[in-house]
Amino acid sequence: MARMIRPLANLYEQLRRLPGVGSKTAMRLAYHVMDMPAEEVALLAQALTNAKQQIHYCKQCFNLTDAEVCEICNDTDRDRFTICVVEQPQDIAAMERSHGYRGLYHVLHGVLSPLDGIGPDNLRIRELFQRLQSESITEVILATNSNVEGEATATYLAQLLKPAGITVSRIAHGLPVGGELEYADEVTLSRALENRRII
Amino acid sequence: MARMIRPLANLYEQLRRLPGVGSKTAMRLAYHVMDMPAEEVALLAQALTNAKQQIHYCKQCFNLTDAEVCEICNDTDRDRFTICVVEQPQDIAAMERSHGYRGLYHVLHGVLSPLDGIGPDNLRIRELFQRLQSESITEVILATNSNVEGEATATYLAQLLKPAGITVSRIAHGLPVGGELEYADEVTLSRALENRRII
Repeated sequence: MARMIRPLANLYEQLRRLPGVGSKTAMRLAYHVMDMPAEEVALLAQALTNAKQQIHYCKQCFNLTDAEVCEICNDTDRDRFTICVVEQPQDIAAMERSHGYRGLYHVLHGVLSPLDGIGPDNLRIRELFQRLQSESITEVILATNSNVEGEATATYLAQLLKPAGITVSRIAHGLPVGGELEYADEVTLSRALENRRII
Repeated sequence: MARMIRPLANLYEQLRRLPGVGSKTAMRLAYHVMDMPAEEVALLAQALTNAKQQIHYCKQCFNLTDAEVCEICNDTDRDRFTICVVEQPQDIAAMERSHGYRGLYHVLHGVLSPLDGIGPDNLRIRELFQRLQSESITEVILATNSNVEGEATATYLAQLLKPAGITVSRIAHGLPVGGELEYADEVTLSRALENRRII
């Protein structure tokens, strides 16, 4: 076509903005939509709108929820003395899949990143301290990622939290289970050595 | 989360149905939508709905269009004696990008594939013959893909078209321009030899 017809070009442009969707993928998806039954396209459009309209942040922990308070904060069977601090809601999903944690969470919605202009006020740090005052928390586990920003954010939070008399811990870093020494990168390997435990 | 919240799980399921979108990509996209501004999500949902509602097949050549007849069929500057037969609307887009063709098109919307139960009646073949009767076509170029189904469809159409006294041609197959002999597959190389031209 001399130029792409408007509604198709528009769909292509919108798809193109999604992460990991390059121009070829966006084109393929746009043409695929043309081949989909109209009801299926309507379901997809509706799912997008509904998810965005119905989901917001839990007013306690800032996890995603379609209620006022999320399922985890609402679950009376969980340990209410521990908060695990994570960067994003999807980190909670990963933690829950491991079945290794039964406490509460707090989502920062980002990490400290001065170069991107993200300071403590852009994260849900104030809200974390408000929770420490109103809830009976005894331990805060820092589970930010183990990259530069994640580490810096964990260090920053630890310095603020320790004077408040709360146990502060950091999730362990070392060799992945099933991982082989031979293929481990140097930084992971030296962290695994540093963090060795007497058995 | 013990289970994913409903609107998010629903979005994930709808995204999962798109071609080339596995479970990890669908999950990443679903969480990305949660981070997108509401207006952008609305634009994407609207683009999907609009594209599906406003685009349909050109009543002459079965290309995609938002009008009754597509831009190409409507373009009086084009050669109206030649029809290039392609499998899908996106093949027209590829041909047009090459700027090598100035005639009309006809989209089959598929290829003959007995194993998938796709016979001549499932393609726009009858409509092609109707055009040959009502328009003054002198040549039909068969530009189906060069895989088994594409070749079989081209052969089938050629057998039907030749008795009608129309010039029938097949697009050339050979070495891609810029391609090196050393790296060409055997079939392409033998086709390139077969189709050699005296210079």
